[in-house]
Amino acid sequence: MKNGVGCVDTRYFTFAESPDELRLETGRKLGPITLAYETYGSLNRSRSNAILIEHALSGDAHAAGVHQGDEKPGWWDNMIGPGKAFDTDQYFVVCSNAIGGCKGSTGPSSINPGTGKPYASQFPFITIGDMVNAQKRLLDHLGIQKLLCVTGGSMGGMKTLQWVASDPQRVRSAIPIATTMKHSPFQIAFNEVGRQAIMADPSWQKGNYYEGAKPERGLAVARMIGHITYMSDRSMEAKFSRRLKNGAYSYSFAADFEVEGYLQYRGESFVKRFDANSYLYFTKAMDYFDVSGGKLIAGKEISEVKFLVLSFKSDWLYPSYQSRSIVRELRKKKAEVDCFQIKSTYGHDAFLLEVEAQTRLIRNFLERVAENRSS
Amino acid sequence: MKNGVGCVDTRYFTFAESPDELRLETGRKLGPITLAYETYGSLNRSRSNAILIEHALSGDAHAAGVHQGDEKPGWWDNMIGPGKAFDTDQYFVVCSNAIGGCKGSTGPSSINPGTGKPYASQFPFITIGDMVNAQKRLLDHLGIQKLLCVTGGSMGGMKTLQWVASDPQRVRSAIPIATTMKHSPFQIAFNEVGRQAIMADPSWQKGNYYEGAKPERGLAVARMIGHITYMSDRSMEAKFSRRLKNGAYSYSFAADFEVEGYLQYRGESFVKRFDANSYLYFTKAMDYFDVSGGKLIAGKEISEVKFLVLSFKSDWLYPSYQSRSIVRELRKKKAEVDCFQIKSTYGHDAFLLEVEAQTRLIRNFLERVAENRSS
Repeated sequence: MKNGVGCVDTRYFTFAESPDELRLETGRKLGPITLAYETYGSLNRSRSNAILIEHALSGDAHAAGVHQGDEKPGWWDNMIGPGKAFDTDQYFVVCSNAIGGCKGSTGPSSINPGTGKPYASQFPFITIGDMVNAQKRLLDHLGIQKLLCVTGGSMGGMKTLQWVASDPQRVRSAIPIATTMKHSPFQIAFNEVGRQAIMADPSWQKGNYYEGAKPERGLAVARMIGHITYMSDRSMEAKFSRRLKNGAYSYSFAADFEVEGYLQYRGESFVKRFDANSYLYFTKAMDYFDVSGGKLIAGKEISEVKFLVLSFKSDWLYPSYQSRSIVRELRKKKAEVDCFQIKSTYGHDAFLLEVEAQTRLIRNFLERVAENRSS
Repeated sequence: MKNGVGCVDTRYFTFAESPDELRLETGRKLGPITLAYETYGSLNRSRSNAILIEHALSGDAHAAGVHQGDEKPGWWDNMIGPGKAFDTDQYFVVCSNAIGGCKGSTGPSSINPGTGKPYASQFPFITIGDMVNAQKRLLDHLGIQKLLCVTGGSMGGMKTLQWVASDPQRVRSAIPIATTMKHSPFQIAFNEVGRQAIMADPSWQKGNYYEGAKPERGLAVARMIGHITYMSDRSMEAKFSRRLKNGAYSYSFAADFEVEGYLQYRGESFVKRFDANSYLYFTKAMDYFDVSGGKLIAGKEISEVKFLVLSFKSDWLYPSYQSRSIVRELRKKKAEVDCFQIKSTYGHDAFLLEVEAQTRLIRNFLERVAENRSS
């Protein structure tokens, strides 16, 4: 058994607005901004071993280890730690909650210093680019000029690509996983019904619900939709088949099948830990994201960033053809790209579950990148 | 241009309860029962040219032609008419709205004669078997002892298979399209989130909403989810790509992309024509349906019913492997089965859109069945 990173704390970095650097892409301003973040391992003397982990829609800064008094490990604990894919004996691993979120970084549920109340619907729209721009300030604070690697799956993969698009000089390598340069209408459609489910909840109140009941029913439905898209026909068959919760049909609208009970449970538990407005802001940021058409590596530049692009065979939400598009785009700019479609039946969730295959590929890739670094 | 069946009327057939024949599969009773139905073409002298069309979840008795004062043709008008797949010059085509529905057949929005008010939550659970049992009374009424063919897509395909399972002596041939012997957990999951969206709407009131506001927001969300599952990644890309409604991002939660506007429109227009409780009862009946494990052709019987089983390549909601399972099951009983996977990018909607390929296959099949009939 590999050991984990052990007990960890979430830390908070707050910086005041600086108009030149932190104006949002919409032109609006936001500040002060707090970023929740965690680090694992140690930054080396040359500050050249830092890896930035980017979380997905419902993720947070707590990527590995456990918090005091809590048994649940971070969301990518199986990938981050001594001897793991992101080996904390070798690398300094950083993960931060994106702005717009609800896990310690400034988002719609944070207090607006101008009013003393939560921002709610006054929170400005943020883009994937804004999330990355805020993170740059955190890296400055941590004394990291250049990342050895930036990586993440799903929305985390978008932030990974955005780093390359925004500031390629600051990145040695990137591992976008199960992601895309831009959402297809199919992906936008699933996000949109999730949003509609939230906004259909009368408790949503156009986002101004923090002093009353929360739009929990709507958010639960959105999460249930999400969960289906993260799995696959085959993984659901393997996990649930048509097994009944209570042995016989109820002939009522209660959950008869185990899969129904599972989805309801996942919906209900999600609303306890996630803010509906953050769900809206994040999904909108994902839908707006588009680094296709040359924007991933701008102009005539030749990319010096090295890439490992990963996708999963059964992932129908972020299908492999989208990863192949990323690869084509990168190769046009003569970038060094490794690309793998990993066999898996887990669907989009595979980036959280296919530990062995990802570990092998990522470890080899990082070793090569790290060797090049010193040469 | 092929002509259609012209102006048609929906008719209504009402029969009183008859405990022996019309007890529901749950053991409860329902009556009197009205069935809305339409017919196209003429029944021949030997009453041997009748084809029964089974509609899908949101379909109704109006399968072909137009109603007086209305320009919208029936839902399968491109397949039913003179010279079409179901050629009304040769065949007598019948389509009836299923019980549990809201288009003229007895369902939760119908008046309960016991109370003078809509059944609402007092409406008994109905199964696909009950829908077929009610239809048998309609065929008796029309003087049809044996159907030349029964056919339908999606839930209509389930009713088609149920006819074979319940009363194979009454069916010469069957064309189940884009359907399954039983829902997978993946299919149940999509139905369940649709139901949760409806039941999350405070106006739903446990089904007792007919005297107040209707759960329109919830039903619209359910329909939006449905619409995504009826299309495909490719058909959405072809239809919408990332085109914007108003040329620029709104940085609001309004619909930015055409696909969002389309889904909202489809959701909003659906609630004007469909009852939320019928949506719940129908989807539950679909989830309960299961004629696998030998139930499709019971016992040691050898099936004399001829089959044409159709599926579509891009249909990820009712994937072709489910049609292949039907074929395997039928061949175990030595049934004569033709089976085709039709190339299409339309997804599940293909059964409504791939007219040419379906027409060719169905016309040939029906000709062979009809020839056999007279020999």
